[in-house]
Amino acid sequence: MRIAIDAMGGDYAPQEVLKGVSLALKSDPGLEIVLVGKKETIEAMVREEGLSFNYSLLSASEEISMGEKAVISVRRKKDSSIVKGIQLLKEGRADAFISFGNTGAVVAASTLYLGLIEGVERAGIALVYSGLHGPSLIIDVGANIDAKPQYLFKYGIMASIYAQEVLGIERPRIGLLNIGEEESKGTGFIKEVHTLFERSSLNFIGNVEGKDIFRDICDCIICDGFVGNITLKVAEGTMEAMGSFLVSELKSSLWGRLSLLLGKGSFERLKRLGDYAEYGGAPLLGINGLVIIGHGRSRALAVKNAIRVAKKEIKQNITEKIQEKINVIG
Amino acid sequence: MRIAIDAMGGDYAPQEVLKGVSLALKSDPGLEIVLVGKKETIEAMVREEGLSFNYSLLSASEEISMGEKAVISVRRKKDSSIVKGIQLLKEGRADAFISFGNTGAVVAASTLYLGLIEGVERAGIALVYSGLHGPSLIIDVGANIDAKPQYLFKYGIMASIYAQEVLGIERPRIGLLNIGEEESKGTGFIKEVHTLFERSSLNFIGNVEGKDIFRDICDCIICDGFVGNITLKVAEGTMEAMGSFLVSELKSSLWGRLSLLLGKGSFERLKRLGDYAEYGGAPLLGINGLVIIGHGRSRALAVKNAIRVAKKEIKQNITEKIQEKINVIG
Repeated sequence: MRIAIDAMGGDYAPQEVLKGVSLALKSDPGLEIVLVGKKETIEAMVREEGLSFNYSLLSASEEISMGEKAVISVRRKKDSSIVKGIQLLKEGRADAFISFGNTGAVVAASTLYLGLIEGVERAGIALVYSGLHGPSLIIDVGANIDAKPQYLFKYGIMASIYAQEVLGIERPRIGLLNIGEEESKGTGFIKEVHTLFERSSLNFIGNVEGKDIFRDICDCIICDGFVGNITLKVAEGTMEAMGSFLVSELKSSLWGRLSLLLGKGSFERLKRLGDYAEYGGAPLLGINGLVIIGHGRSRALAVKNAIRVAKKEIKQNITEKIQEKINVIG
Repeated sequence: MRIAIDAMGGDYAPQEVLKGVSLALKSDPGLEIVLVGKKETIEAMVREEGLSFNYSLLSASEEISMGEKAVISVRRKKDSSIVKGIQLLKEGRADAFISFGNTGAVVAASTLYLGLIEGVERAGIALVYSGLHGPSLIIDVGANIDAKPQYLFKYGIMASIYAQEVLGIERPRIGLLNIGEEESKGTGFIKEVHTLFERSSLNFIGNVEGKDIFRDICDCIICDGFVGNITLKVAEGTMEAMGSFLVSELKSSLWGRLSLLLGKGSFERLKRLGDYAEYGGAPLLGINGLVIIGHGRSRALAVKNAIRVAKKEIKQNITEKIQEKINVIG
């Protein structure tokens, strides 16, 4: 099993990426890791951090930064870590590619160089997070913002396969993110998607609302990339705001500081609710190859977990399963 | 000052609505309240709850339930509390109307019977909530889901006037809800809205993201009703999930229970973050009259606060100010 990792992408790269790889190799020394990026930078950081692990290195002289335009950058920067990593996957010299860098560039490079699975019109980013009852998935959180009803329907099929094979959920419940539960709710676009799901053999439970994302009524939430991206960031922002408000409130009094100390374990478990680091990475579904997009703010633990996800996807042949079933289900 | 209140709307009506009115009248005995709804039901509940306050009653024999289709119901149920309340406003026999009932029906009745302010193409619901730094506003949270760029631009103008006059914010910062901060981000639709704001004299700060809704970078967040409704419910659902997770975690151990006890004040203040009850109601902006839409789950305190908001809007002549400025700003 060989996994290629973009060593240059993310807010804490290459340092935290390398530390995460080191952690992953400690628990699975047989794993082959290909680090993609600037040779000198990577080697210097490995030394500096006192890390010691086996890896091969694929040199890439260019970097695509977070703010760069996706399509233009992947066409121009052929020697970037993202494009080189994706090419490695295409040539069959890696089984999966993980990047914590520019999401748009990873989506563009994957679509351009690996191509879409036959029957899939657009790739979608499936974010897996911890709900109150266990893992939940939301797709698309930003791969494609100009959606058509058919795209969302395919997201549903892919989500169902992924949730079953990788997350181990039997007959995953599929919900359509809408502004009300009733069938009559929503835009014309959403109603069309609803009809497609209703006619399918998927375990479609109907519309779900924004307040349902953590509730045990649905395993896979389907939406377009614009709405999904906002949903993800609103949840993230709300958690951060609540967390920092509570901590500063408690710290302001003696009883509060004692409360914080006594409840330490609970506060720490709360932090894991909805935490991307727990899961580690979001699979880009619909392309010919296993690509995982990690959060830009990933630290070592999130990197390690992203590698764990990649291993599971490789084991379950998730691309092949989507290829087989995408045109059968429906 | 005379405020009409839909006594039949909301999950806890008429009981909690009446208790809220009673609270409001205790702090302002000079206020005139018109309760709109079923005479016998209201009178029986006032007796049952042992309430004693002055009110006049406008009898309405019909009710529009939460699930009913908006436009059809307000056309058919002319004797419903929503339609009768709006009519009272139109006839100048009330200065504001508050309902905790079917949001769609209130929007439809307002648009149909009161009409839109000249220059406004669609009404928008402006939700005011407590951010980390003070009151924030998001418009539209669900009045209209098939938006055009011009509608969102007008929401921005109205939000700016409202935030300044009612919330007391000097030169309110206007942000456009998008999937990234860069100007190049988002759909073609969003980019058009961006251009309209950029060319205006409003204090436009550019794009904001879902993670920014509680941050002190923006006072008014502009979005279409579909995205706004999902944003509002995701934030609400995230808070509820976090709250119930934390409480059940802490309750499961002795130290945790002690922590909960010691931090009681802080946990209670946390609950108020983003709480609609704190503010009480969401003004429906853009129509010829002051209409306030309360959350369906409003209890007495939220009802009292909605009345406080209505009083402030009446005092500030908010409809007239929007009428004056809507075609001047831009």
